[in-house]
Amino acid sequence: MKFCSECASPVSLSIPAGDNRPRYVCTSCAAIHYQNPKMVLGSIPVWERDGELKVLLCKRAIEPRYGYWTLPAGFMENNETTAEAAIRETQEEAGANIKLGNLFTLLNVARVHQVHMFYLAELVDLDFAPGEESLEVQLFSERDIPWSELAFPTIQTTLELFFADRVKIREGGSYGFHTQDINRTMRAEGEEAK
Amino acid sequence: MKFCSECASPVSLSIPAGDNRPRYVCTSCAAIHYQNPKMVLGSIPVWERDGELKVLLCKRAIEPRYGYWTLPAGFMENNETTAEAAIRETQEEAGANIKLGNLFTLLNVARVHQVHMFYLAELVDLDFAPGEESLEVQLFSERDIPWSELAFPTIQTTLELFFADRVKIREGGSYGFHTQDINRTMRAEGEEAK
Ligand SMILES: [Zn+2]
Ligand SMILES: [Zn+2]
Repeated sequence: MKFCSECASPVSLSIPAGDNRPRYVCTSCAAIHYQNPKMVLGSIPVWERDGELKVLLCKRAIEPRYGYWTLPAGFMENNETTAEAAIRETQEEAGANIKLGNLFTLLNVARVHQVHMFYLAELVDLDFAPGEESLEVQLFSERDIPWSELAFPTIQTTLELFFADRVKIREGGSYGFHTQDINRTMRAEGEEAK
Repeated sequence: MKFCSECASPVSLSIPAGDNRPRYVCTSCAAIHYQNPKMVLGSIPVWERDGELKVLLCKRAIEPRYGYWTLPAGFMENNETTAEAAIRETQEEAGANIKLGNLFTLLNVARVHQVHMFYLAELVDLDFAPGEESLEVQLFSERDIPWSELAFPTIQTTLELFFADRVKIREGGSYGFHTQDINRTMRAEGEEAK
């Protein structure tokens, strides 16, 4: 940020009175421009028939992580709830109609100023299709999940927690709600063959 | 938003290619300035001795809702986690040292583009004191909670859910994790005597 979005004068980093950290403050109108973390909302869309469960993943058609697999997810917008954002992103990226369940993971990615949240979801039908931000959309059983080609650590963590809870469910338990801090990054593309 | 924060040219509302909603787009450098919901993080600091439980509330020294009671809470900052934000706000507003527990509520306030989250917390000691944004800080037992003088609907909802879960705990249950959409506003000041 270089200029005030209210008056176009230059901004400078300084600590406002009563505050304790540097902010972008306008040198002319004194407006303080706060910067805050963003929420990324998504779902874990599942299709379960005859005892077999599959999860819907999208192959990314955009950077970062073009060509890698992700759960449908994206930035939450103003004027919507976390649940509405998860449903919208699943529709936009996977063309999928879902019945949303409970919130399943809340993952802090402080390094990039984001909080990622994923809801449990059931596919209502199989009429899914890639949206503009996806190359393809595909159902995967647990043994076929492309673990080495996942786009982001929060996708890997959410899927790991999901399949761990599936084991508990077979033993009579139920899905939990999981919070974690994510500090690792995915390996860069050049490193993956090492 | 009137001007581009990168180049100081005027912005105009238009739908970028591949997008589906109006954004502030720079008329000169084409930068897109997204606006997203913010997270408000807080805690429910309790002090429990000899079977009696009290909750720490802060009387607001700032607008909005000057003079009304709140749980310690505030906007999450970049480079911190939701848990770190809850601990920091509790320290800043109530001068209170807490041991943080699980996330207890996640409340969507879509009307004002906010998501409020409150963590369970235990006071480590009684060395609390009002910070710059609080007039006073006080422990309340359930029967003394100033229900008609609470600052925000999310505070009321979180306290109601907390005391409802306390009943379940006396019956052998445990604290849950609760999500809700908040659509109501607090009554305006002039309406309260009606
Ligand atoms: Zn300005
Ligand atoms: Zn510009």
